[in-house]
Amino acid sequence: MVSKNQIKLITSLQQKKYRIANKLFFAEGVKGIQELLDSNFELEQLYTTKNDFEKVNLHLKTTISDDELKKITALATPNSCLAIFRMPNEKPVSESGLIVVLDSIRDPGNLGTILRLCDWFGIQEVLCSTETVDIYNPKVVQATMGSIGRVNVNYINLTNFLIQTSLPIFGTYMNGENIYKSILPKEGIIVMGNEANGISTELEDLIQNRITIPRFGDIQKTESLNVATATAIILSEFRRS
Amino acid sequence: MVSKNQIKLITSLQQKKYRIANKLFFAEGVKGIQELLDSNFELEQLYTTKNDFEKVNLHLKTTISDDELKKITALATPNSCLAIFRMPNEKPVSESGLIVVLDSIRDPGNLGTILRLCDWFGIQEVLCSTETVDIYNPKVVQATMGSIGRVNVNYINLTNFLIQTSLPIFGTYMNGENIYKSILPKEGIIVMGNEANGISTELEDLIQNRITIPRFGDIQKTESLNVATATAIILSEFRRS
Repeated sequence: MVSKNQIKLITSLQQKKYRIANKLFFAEGVKGIQELLDSNFELEQLYTTKNDFEKVNLHLKTTISDDELKKITALATPNSCLAIFRMPNEKPVSESGLIVVLDSIRDPGNLGTILRLCDWFGIQEVLCSTETVDIYNPKVVQATMGSIGRVNVNYINLTNFLIQTSLPIFGTYMNGENIYKSILPKEGIIVMGNEANGISTELEDLIQNRITIPRFGDIQKTESLNVATATAIILSEFRRS
Repeated sequence: MVSKNQIKLITSLQQKKYRIANKLFFAEGVKGIQELLDSNFELEQLYTTKNDFEKVNLHLKTTISDDELKKITALATPNSCLAIFRMPNEKPVSESGLIVVLDSIRDPGNLGTILRLCDWFGIQEVLCSTETVDIYNPKVVQATMGSIGRVNVNYINLTNFLIQTSLPIFGTYMNGENIYKSILPKEGIIVMGNEANGISTELEDLIQNRITIPRFGDIQKTESLNVATATAIILSEFRRS
């Protein structure tokens, strides 16, 4: 049973301002919720239509009907469960190793996929411009498949950060150096630009190394790769070397 | 102005059986439509809310209102235009170079992203199992960003094809050879498996070379990469060598 007030709270958490005001966010689906539980996120309340999540304390678990789930889900095709978690406190930026910088990524699916890639490639720091979509957006949480607990994400003024860093800064452009022939360091900053506009003019002067994923084939007209697939190839190149 | 019959036809094209029966599919958005026009797809009718597409013959162009667009769109947030195209005849499989084989990819966004990647990496042949999502699904058309016109896609019995081919066959597994250390040929078949289940047991015995994208980092728990991002990394590896 889920009360009217709870429905109101949960649906409000689809909006960033209410997530921040309540310091809460939610996740849907057994796999994603289990990964957040395993990553020591603090569970506020779990709503499930099934008799699952046996290890979750009974007072934190509410069994609900499919119709009740439909009232709280953010998905077109709801899963079997939804869980509210406490937002953890931000951890400070650790300025070492490889750092991924996201300059206004707007699509939640892209951000989620990029966080999952960072997790796979052992990248622990992701820095986002304040215009980048919120990591606690339900669609981002959904797309990360739990990686959200293993990658440290901070929203900061990127210009200020890039001006002061001593790490080498890389950015992807259409006319940069062939990434397959570039010498890529173990430590550095990789800047990925916005879906439509690429890296912003404000950051452009701070990019020391312009790299490019070459195109192949004779009659190539593909204008660009999606930012998430480009990130996949670039992280793979940095790690393989 | 769009008639009731036209609305009925266009919305029916969201379903595969009506696309096949009418030999028609549709695309939305200026960029995607322009790319299909440039790729010589035969335009049946264009519906636009703006005074654009100047080169399109007047009898093939209908100006409509935003409200009319809402009645025909497949998108939650409709674009400014929608175009119906004739499905081209299937071209036979050209068994040379690199071929991507998709074993039951179910998500339209993944298929669209994979076709865009194939286009970028100059791969002209994609073979899909009959359970793979239809390339003329509106969400696939949307995600390909026009690449659909530059990659030849066939839906076939994959077992029969893989049994008879003389090309080397590669497949991605969790416990295969490190792809960064593998010798990858210029010609060959790359099999990508289903989002949830990977490569089907039916095809397993036909995979001669099991390859793996290594994981990095100390406490890695990411279970797998998304099939589209894995395809990005694998195609990049095949092409870079």
